[in-house]
Parts: sequence; structure tokens; C-alpha cells
Amino acid sequence: MERTFALKGHVIYTPACGRLALHPDSYLVCEEGKVAGIFKTLPAHWQGVPVHDHGDKLILPGLIDLHVHASQYAYRGLGMDLELLDWLSANAFPEEAKFADPAYAQRAYGIFVKALTRSATTRACVFATLHRPATLHLMALLEEAGLPCLVGKVNMDRNSPDILRETTETSLAETRRWLEESVEFSLVRPILTPRFTPSCTDQLMAGLGQLQREFSVPMQSHLSENLSEIQWVRELCPGTSCYGEAYARFGLFGGPCPTVMAHCVWSGPEERALMKEQGVFVAHCPQSNMNLSSGIAPIKGYLQEGQQVGLGTDVAGGAHLSLFRAMTEAIQCSKLRWRLVDQDTPALTLPEVLYLATKGGGKFFGQVGSFEPGYDFDAIVLDDSALPTTWPCTLAQRLERLVYLSDGQPVAKYAAGRRLF
Amino acid sequence: MERTFALKGHVIYTPACGRLALHPDSYLVCEEGKVAGIFKTLPAHWQGVPVHDHGDKLILPGLIDLHVHASQYAYRGLGMDLELLDWLSANAFPEEAKFADPAYAQRAYGIFVKALTRSATTRACVFATLHRPATLHLMALLEEAGLPCLVGKVNMDRNSPDILRETTETSLAETRRWLEESVEFSLVRPILTPRFTPSCTDQLMAGLGQLQREFSVPMQSHLSENLSEIQWVRELCPGTSCYGEAYARFGLFGGPCPTVMAHCVWSGPEERALMKEQGVFVAHCPQSNMNLSSGIAPIKGYLQEGQQVGLGTDVAGGAHLSLFRAMTEAIQCSKLRWRLVDQDTPALTLPEVLYLATKGGGKFFGQVGSFEPGYDFDAIVLDDSALPTTWPCTLAQRLERLVYLSDGQPVAKYAAGRRLF
Repeated sequence: MERTFALKGHVIYTPACGRLALHPDSYLVCEEGKVAGIFKTLPAHWQGVPVHDHGDKLILPGLIDLHVHASQYAYRGLGMDLELLDWLSANAFPEEAKFADPAYAQRAYGIFVKALTRSATTRACVFATLHRPATLHLMALLEEAGLPCLVGKVNMDRNSPDILRETTETSLAETRRWLEESVEFSLVRPILTPRFTPSCTDQLMAGLGQLQREFSVPMQSHLSENLSEIQWVRELCPGTSCYGEAYARFGLFGGPCPTVMAHCVWSGPEERALMKEQGVFVAHCPQSNMNLSSGIAPIKGYLQEGQQVGLGTDVAGGAHLSLFRAMTEAIQCSKLRWRLVDQDTPALTLPEVLYLATKGGGKFFGQVGSFEPGYDFDAIVLDDSALPTTWPCTLAQRLERLVYLSDGQPVAKYAAGRRLF
Repeated sequence: MERTFALKGHVIYTPACGRLALHPDSYLVCEEGKVAGIFKTLPAHWQGVPVHDHGDKLILPGLIDLHVHASQYAYRGLGMDLELLDWLSANAFPEEAKFADPAYAQRAYGIFVKALTRSATTRACVFATLHRPATLHLMALLEEAGLPCLVGKVNMDRNSPDILRETTETSLAETRRWLEESVEFSLVRPILTPRFTPSCTDQLMAGLGQLQREFSVPMQSHLSENLSEIQWVRELCPGTSCYGEAYARFGLFGGPCPTVMAHCVWSGPEERALMKEQGVFVAHCPQSNMNLSSGIAPIKGYLQEGQQVGLGTDVAGGAHLSLFRAMTEAIQCSKLRWRLVDQDTPALTLPEVLYLATKGGGKFFGQVGSFEPGYDFDAIVLDDSALPTTWPCTLAQRLERLVYLSDGQPVAKYAAGRRLF
């Protein structure tokens, strides 16, 4: 498998939030799986490496989905007239229980991985279910597909139906075994995944904190998504100043092992201060926040105060795996927030949301989501010829049209220096 | 061309707002271009008529787009970081000026009509530009495509650039000539189209009111979309109690010749009373209202108080011609409105927005948008086999998945009793 090669085409990326770097008709060089640079002519050093000439097409960094439930993909777009807690009971929990059956898991995860492979997403933070075998199966499928994802076996030992609940001991023992078994994968890595505070006892959280320190793994969960959920956490965790503290008191809130929290729609000043101090990543999932009537997260404010932010699709609270759609929805929601909630904070712009979908979320994976030298080589190639117009568009306009008008399915895709198709 | 035939498949429509009628494995009979009924077995009366067997596919009424700018289709998805009045100056006006060139108009309208033909939309209220020849050309293309649309030559005699402004006299003379020349079409009909109050002097509005009474044509325009626009109208029309009155004082606000007004995001009590009294239709365009930072129209409230409401895509304030997307966005916006603005008014539901996209908007065209006997036969056939799931879905769930997950492009389409493909 070639690890050093060059792509030719119109190269676009965001070196900083809101800044668009445009390199028309350029060579993007991959050396041993890392970005080596962007050049108008191929330097002598790389003469003779294979060149994939993508002609008039656009080349972007692969997109990063910071929050997606693989086990919910099968029922995306269903039950959308419900709010979060009712929707979990009606849809999510009964469906996730089916993943105890390996044959069912294989079929459902097969559909998910096929769709993720065809999408513009190269990396994702993925929720599986509480079932260890099914989670390992999902990891194997993603590994085989060449998608360097973080995948979590879910933990839940309270406030969930009998068919989808572990004892604390089983949950911790299965998590340990899963972490040990995960070493078989090289691209795909495990991420601790307590579902959310209402599903996890203090003993479980404390045990997960110990496992995190022992195995040095990142962690993902949900935070301040819905007002009823926040009230519930307040009742479950008396004495905490904010929902985030319900994780932080067990060491599960950023720090040396990074944490990504989905939603953060209603995070108040204490929580925001804690998030910033601990470098907690926000996975902004605008479509899900609309579908489940959660609200609009103050993303521009988060950026202004220096929080770490990326985008998530939150399938199946969100119905679509497309991060192009998430980008436009992030802009649209921020415009409504400006108009209806806070006219002091401007809306997000296209270069800002492209940053969120690439380098912003990519930081959670390391040096990912940019074409600066040394970054992991994740790239997608986009063809806009099926979007006819009478306009002679600039490269920036072609990008805007692709983001607004297509679902972002690339014609070629590279992850971690390997061509997937 | 056969005018009496039957479709076979899973038939779905909304006889009333919020009520879903589901007829699995049924025959939908078209007799002389009108719906004759839905039957489990084909009645003896129609034995022998051609049957188009669509198997396991879903059959819905054709969708109605109450507001779309054909001349803006070429630059959909561009300049989306601007608000309404800036966006008009930067994008809409310079582009529309190009339609003075018949060759350009032919090319741009060709792209639009091709896309509309492939979409789920069977009828639309279409803005052209102020150019009579180009408008007639658009009408000819739609007539040829078999799409029974209402198309308007735009009027504008003030507050627009020199390249896109008529004198009052020219505007009225050209409109009269266009109305006379429009009789050559049978499916496509003209609709009076003063762009909006800021673009039209009182003399022009008065002249259009006279033309409306003389020719008995419907009328379309924009109303209460954006707060800056409303303030401008207040300054331009001193003495009016609301923006709607700026049209009503010339007789251009419903009554015997129906009016459809795009947006109505910020309509206050006086305007809403006037709209209801005059039967003015609201074209709700949620995507445009997000893209242009306009706000969220109180659609559920309009329905509760008995207003006439349908959906619009408002290309190119909206970037997509898909009314499926408009349906989900109408729901999503109504959820955000509930959460952020008015917790006494619940969100819209899927059966409600399907009604808006079919019978709600269809009423503007007559007996259109339903499968009740006597309705014009507009139908689309949808294939959901490309949306894999492990769930054994009910027919209502298959509909919900199609609306959320696809853009609604049908595999077969019928309008006014004629099969388009």
C-alpha cells in the first residue's frame, strides 16, 4: 500500500477558525501517511511519486464527526415528534437492546459502516451499545473500512429498562475486558462511554475514572442537552454546582485524557469555566438539538471564550450522517440564536463551521483536520459538476455551493494516509 | 394521451391538517384528469383502464411550492453570510438584470425547470424577473414540462439599481401586454408580482390593482419577512397600520382574487386579522428565514387561528428546491420557536407539515393537493428502497423516513392528470 503520493486539484482547508486557505490547481503531498505540504509544482524531492490527478475537483480535509450513535442509525428519521427523554424510552433503548444478538448487530452495524464509508467523514467518536461483543464487531468493521474512529462500549447501570442495564460490577468488568481486547485494532481505538449521568451510578463513574487512569483512554458522554435532563441530574447529584461537575468529581471531565461532551446547549458560567479549564471538547449537534427540541447551543460564544468545539451529527437524534448538512445547520441555528436570543453575538460563518468540522473536531484525535505539514493525511475529493449554474464561480463560491447544496459524498477519500476509494 | 387510468401502490394523503390517510396496497383512480377515488380492488366501472403498478412504493399528492424565484436558482447556496437587504443588493439584483438577455434567461430557466421537473413539486408560485420576454420563455418551458405553475413577471419601479428598474408606465404597459400574451398557455397561468412594497411606488400598486380587477388574476408578493424591511415600509407608507395595509389599500391583499404572501415572520395582530379576513395565503419558507436571519414564523399559531398556510422553498433565500426538506425544517423551526420564544404553542408535526406541503398550499390553485374525489390529479411515486434499515417499518414510518432522509425525488410523477415521467 503506497504511503507516499500526491493529490492534484483545488486544495482548501482552514488553518485557523474562520480563515480559509485556498490553493487552486495544486499538489497536496502525503509522505508516510502525513501531510508534507501544498505546492504549485511538485518539488524535485517527490518527482516520481504516484500522483492522483483529481482535475477540476475540490480537495478538503476529511470531516470529523464528534458524536454519532452507530446503534441508532437503523431508525434515523423516526419518532421525531418526541422530546429527548420520551424518545430515548420509545426508540433508543428498545433498539439498543437488540444488539445483544450478534447477528442483529452485524447487520445493523454493516449498514452504518457502509454509509459512513461513503460519507465525507473520515473519523468519528462513536457510541456503540453496552454489549462488548457487538462493540468489538463494530470496531472490526470500522478497522476493515479504514476509518480511524474512536468507539465506545456504553455503560449504564441505572434508570434504564431491564433489557438494557448492567450491574455495576458487570459494567466495569466488561469494560475492562473490552479495553484489553481492543488492542487488536490499530486504526480504531476505544473511548470510555458512560451514557450520561442519569444512566450511571456513582460507583460506576468512580470505577470508570480508575479505568481511564489505568488505560489512558479518552472519554465521551452527553452534557446539558435538555432542560428536563439537567433538572434530573440536579436531583440525582445533590451538591454539584453544575451538570459538568457530576462527571468532574470522578475525574471524568477533560484533563490529561481528553473528554468530548455532546450538546452543551444550556451550559452556564460554572460549567463553561470548568470546560475551558479542563479543555473539554464540545460536540455541537445542531440538527439533533432541533429535532429533540433541545435549543441552540451558544457556539460562537464558546469560540470567543476559547472553548474546544467540533461538530457532530448525533445520529439518530440527528437524522443525517452528513457533516455538510451539520455545517449549514450550525450556521442557520446561530442566525436564529442571534435573532431570537442574543443580538450581541454574531452568527457563525462558513469558514468557521468548516473549521469546526475539520481542525476544530480533529484536535480531539491529535494532529488531524488540516493540511498543515505533519498532520495525519485525511482528505476527501468533491465533484461539483452535478450542481449546474450559469455563474462563473470562484473557488470559495464553489465550496459554499457544495456545502449548502450537496450532502458531501466524495468521489475519492483518504484516511490516515490510505486511499479508501 | 391517456386521461383515465389507475395507480397501484401505498396511497397516502392528508384530508385535513394533521390527519394522515393511509391506504396500503390500493388503487388510486384518475378519471379525465381528476381523482375518482381510492379502492382496495379496482371497481368494475374502471376494469380495463391502464394500471400503473408501482408495487411497494409510496404514492403521495404532488407537492406545492408557494414561493420560489426561478431567476435565483443559478446562485442558490451563495452569499449566505448576508442578511436580506444586503443579499438582495449583492446577489439578487445583479443576477436578475442578466435576464434582459433572452439567451441567458433560456439557459438559466432551463436549469431551473429541469430541476423542478425532477423534484416532488408539481405546482409552484414562481417569481420570474421584470423582463416580459424572459418571463414568457419561463412559462413556455414550464408548460412544455407539464408543470401547472403560476408565474409572475416582477414589477419594480423604485429602490432598485438602474439595471433592474422600470418606469411606472413601462411596468404597467409591459404587465398588461404580458397578461394578454399569457393566454397562449393552458397549464401555466400568470400571477401579478409586485416584488415588495419598497420596490413599488403607489402609482404602480394602484395600476396593478386595476389590472388585477380587469384580468382576474391572483397575486403574490413578500410580507413582514425582516425587521429592517418592515421598518423601511413603515417609513415609505406613513399612515398604514401594518405592512399588509400597504398592499390592501390598493386592493392587493386577498379577496376575490387570491393573494399569497411569502414569509409573514413578524406579522402582528392587525396584519393577522387582515390576512384572515381576506383569506391571504402564507407561504412559509423556513430555510430562507434561517439563511437570511429573518426569524421563525408562528405557523402553528396561524393554523390555530384559521389562516391559509402552505410551504415555500424561496430559492434562492432557501438553497433547496426540495419541499421534503422544507417540511422537516418547518418542524425543526417550530420546535425551536416553542423552546425559545413561546412555550404555549406546540411544535408542528409531520402530518401537519405534509398537509401544508399538499392540500394547504394546493388550495391556492383550486382543488389541488389531496386525493379526495374531484381533486386535480397530481401525484408522486416514491421509492424508499435506497434507505436501508433493520426495522420492519409501518407505512407511516416509511413516510417519516422518506421525508427526513430523502430529498423527495420521485420515480414517477403526474400533474393535472398527465404522467410527466
